[in-house]
Amino acid sequence: MPETKKVALLVGAGDAIGAAVARRFALGGFAVCVARRDAAKSDQLGEELRKEGCDFHAFSVDARSEEAVQALFTKVEQEVGPIEVCLFNAGSNVNKPLLETTEKLFTRAWELACYAGFLVGREAARHMVPRGRGTILFTGATASLRGGKGFAAFSAAKFGLRAVAQAMARELGPKGVHVMHLIIDAGVDSVAIHERMKAAGVDLSTIKPDSLTRTSSIAEAYWFAHQQSRDGWTHELDLRPSVEAW
Amino acid sequence: MPETKKVALLVGAGDAIGAAVARRFALGGFAVCVARRDAAKSDQLGEELRKEGCDFHAFSVDARSEEAVQALFTKVEQEVGPIEVCLFNAGSNVNKPLLETTEKLFTRAWELACYAGFLVGREAARHMVPRGRGTILFTGATASLRGGKGFAAFSAAKFGLRAVAQAMARELGPKGVHVMHLIIDAGVDSVAIHERMKAAGVDLSTIKPDSLTRTSSIAEAYWFAHQQSRDGWTHELDLRPSVEAW
Amino acid sequence: MPETKKVALLVGAGDAIGAAVARRFALGGFAVCVARRDAAKSDQLGEELRKEGCDFHAFSVDARSEEAVQALFTKVEQEVGPIEVCLFNAGSNVNKPLLETTEKLFTRAWELACYAGFLVGREAARHMVPRGRGTILFTGATASLRGGKGFAAFSAAKFGLRAVAQAMARELGPKGVHVMHLIIDAGVDSVAIHERMKAAGVDLSTIKPDSLTRTSSIAEAYWFAHQQSRDGWTHELDLRPSVEAW
Amino acid sequence: MPETKKVALLVGAGDAIGAAVARRFALGGFAVCVARRDAAKSDQLGEELRKEGCDFHAFSVDARSEEAVQALFTKVEQEVGPIEVCLFNAGSNVNKPLLETTEKLFTRAWELACYAGFLVGREAARHMVPRGRGTILFTGATASLRGGKGFAAFSAAKFGLRAVAQAMARELGPKGVHVMHLIIDAGVDSVAIHERMKAAGVDLSTIKPDSLTRTSSIAEAYWFAHQQSRDGWTHELDLRPSVEAW
Repeated sequence: MPETKKVALLVGAGDAIGAAVARRFALGGFAVCVARRDAAKSDQLGEELRKEGCDFHAFSVDARSEEAVQALFTKVEQEVGPIEVCLFNAGSNVNKPLLETTEKLFTRAWELACYAGFLVGREAARHMVPRGRGTILFTGATASLRGGKGFAAFSAAKFGLRAVAQAMARELGPKGVHVMHLIIDAGVDSVAIHERMKAAGVDLSTIKPDSLTRTSSIAEAYWFAHQQSRDGWTHELDLRPSVEAW
Repeated sequence: MPETKKVALLVGAGDAIGAAVARRFALGGFAVCVARRDAAKSDQLGEELRKEGCDFHAFSVDARSEEAVQALFTKVEQEVGPIEVCLFNAGSNVNKPLLETTEKLFTRAWELACYAGFLVGREAARHMVPRGRGTILFTGATASLRGGKGFAAFSAAKFGLRAVAQAMARELGPKGVHVMHLIIDAGVDSVAIHERMKAAGVDLSTIKPDSLTRTSSIAEAYWFAHQQSRDGWTHELDLRPSVEAW
Repeated sequence: MPETKKVALLVGAGDAIGAAVARRFALGGFAVCVARRDAAKSDQLGEELRKEGCDFHAFSVDARSEEAVQALFTKVEQEVGPIEVCLFNAGSNVNKPLLETTEKLFTRAWELACYAGFLVGREAARHMVPRGRGTILFTGATASLRGGKGFAAFSAAKFGLRAVAQAMARELGPKGVHVMHLIIDAGVDSVAIHERMKAAGVDLSTIKPDSLTRTSSIAEAYWFAHQQSRDGWTHELDLRPSVEAW
Repeated sequence: MPETKKVALLVGAGDAIGAAVARRFALGGFAVCVARRDAAKSDQLGEELRKEGCDFHAFSVDARSEEAVQALFTKVEQEVGPIEVCLFNAGSNVNKPLLETTEKLFTRAWELACYAGFLVGREAARHMVPRGRGTILFTGATASLRGGKGFAAFSAAKFGLRAVAQAMARELGPKGVHVMHLIIDAGVDSVAIHERMKAAGVDLSTIKPDSLTRTSSIAEAYWFAHQQSRDGWTHELDLRPSVEAW
């Protein structure tokens, strides 16, 4: 009965958080669909998860395109099954002095981290509300709560995504759909951050243990949210390393 | 000595808040420049203020156009004088169920309330930072703090504008420019709201006194912020009627 | 090797949240110590958990007494084992118009919900910091975030407890101790609330399913926090029913 | 007609903020009553203000005593006139590692900054509500919003005071009484802070101009709040120096 298969669709799922969430939901028995700009980049993850028996699918999508997002949801629903969990994880950090923040940079940050999140969340709702069930997960950051110096573009986008999550949570909760916004107030332990640190001259061996949040810890928080029953839903939680000053 | 004249530029200045702020800063001895889609709509205000001796100028601008915003600032600086105070007041409320929130509506709300605010704030900074002085004022709303049901589009824009204001405040403060974000947690006493209420079948005579915030009260709060000295700046304050449940 | 036994000490542990957390940590292999005004009231819980093989201990304590709290911790550490998890759950809701809020009521609310929380948290830290490990959990409420009408006393206490949790989290995190504050923005499904509703004339059969948060859901959130690894700790999360307007 | 005299009662009014607020309201035509532990310490301020024609009164009060606070209000109302404005400004900063935070220190911080604030605010309400008018002002701090490391005691008290202010604002607003909580996110330019800095080895001549908030700027913010009309009240505003990193 393929129609009873549980499907998790992870949009903006790269090699760090996205891959970890894919692993966690695969472990939990989900068919996993990951969507990113270039599906081919998920080949290795697909190989790994399929070996462990996971029904894995990769899709290419430009999440900033309404048409592309709608097509993605239709395809997943038709070819894989009803989407039970949807993660929106796109958006990339940027820090620029105000006068160097071009309108292009400002717009791109918003399109990727906020507008795409709205498109994905709305399509998830379109499919989940009629079934009266589902979980929609959004990845937030320090910049979701604080407009720091140099973060006009990124914070405007992340504040906006948080607003989308709140508005969706309030409207969709009574319709049975759980919306959760996760604040990652941390550096994420990933190849990308290691490379940025190396480029900045940091000796990686000097990084304090547990000073970067592991993607598996993030995945666990999303899994926790999905496991909650309707009488007690979390709508926002934070994650940061024990050693972080905040 | 026209170069010592103090200039206030009010962008997105309509007949409600914008006009009241114009009056307040005129009273305070400012040359007042108001910019909105159609400058002709400010004719009456201009007539009123010029009678009282105010150096008043009206401009047409599409604040969502980088080019238009830059041209506006250049023109005001050249033709009127150095901008001492800049208010960004554009943005219009909208409430729609999520599934009826089109991508167009979502984008327009953001362009008007957030993106335009970034463009205006950045241009203000470009002119004020070299002089080491100036005040930049942003109009916020209940939706700046809370993503309510039906407010995905409007809240995403207003949260974003608040992020812009915070990032600007943190970067520009040490450079002598004061950035303030005003949360109007209220209905604003204006022709527009009266008409909306009438259309909704409300008998206007039954409205409790002081249950709508007057535009002059809002203008006074902006004036207060501008009067502050550098040792003690307010970066956010709220306004609501005494009778409001909140 | 009794010294390797994991001990959870739950202070202010009544028949609702306290009992549920006791069950959850018993299930997780913990020796469970519950402390409340009158230990005898935990007899039934003890019987239940001991049947399932749990090493269960009940204590009487007045958590507002420094001496009593210190004695409790010493006794548990000596007689049961090193405390790995400590929950502070005391405090009782009260709503009174301001002018009827006596100094006695204001003081009692604070003593029970805030001062006792400080005493318990500090003693937990005293034992946990030298071991470089442990989890301290605080129960918060809607009133932890919002000073509502009639809640001067209760909110002052719950705001205060949240401050204690934050200060402890920031100081103890780098020392290996995880502090988490849980915001229960909900009515808790308990005998107490049912009785209050009946007294208020509510027909219990009309209560919407999932409109009260179950104590087991709360316990699960505490268990989640305790399971987190040091690279990604949650310091605050909220819980509310799917049907709640917020 | 002495009954039409406007009276401002400032409790916890020392030589810094209290004196500046006294000066501001004297300038605004108020009869000024300052209350502190030892009235004699206000002799100099009294002399100064009386010279300028102010009706000035100093009182000794222990604001942590319900009886003393009630007696103070009765005395002021009978001997000076109806209290129009009441400021609560007591509370003194303290930073201690958690394990050195004694129960005495924790309790004292709360009694002074929170409990006394409740007593003063409640008595102000008792006199103002029947008249349907009045302004109640509370002094907050960085620690009102953030439980920083070492601030368990002070933050618990200041968070609590903020809760009191919120609960009072919500209940008293519709009754015509304006409650405002001022967040001073700054060092206050005062003899006390200069002495503390000197003791810490700081060369006072190296302090950046405008890096400490002047008491006159704080007083101006309170005056602004009191001047607001009922259609637009501010319930919280922040103050910090332009040069502050926050």
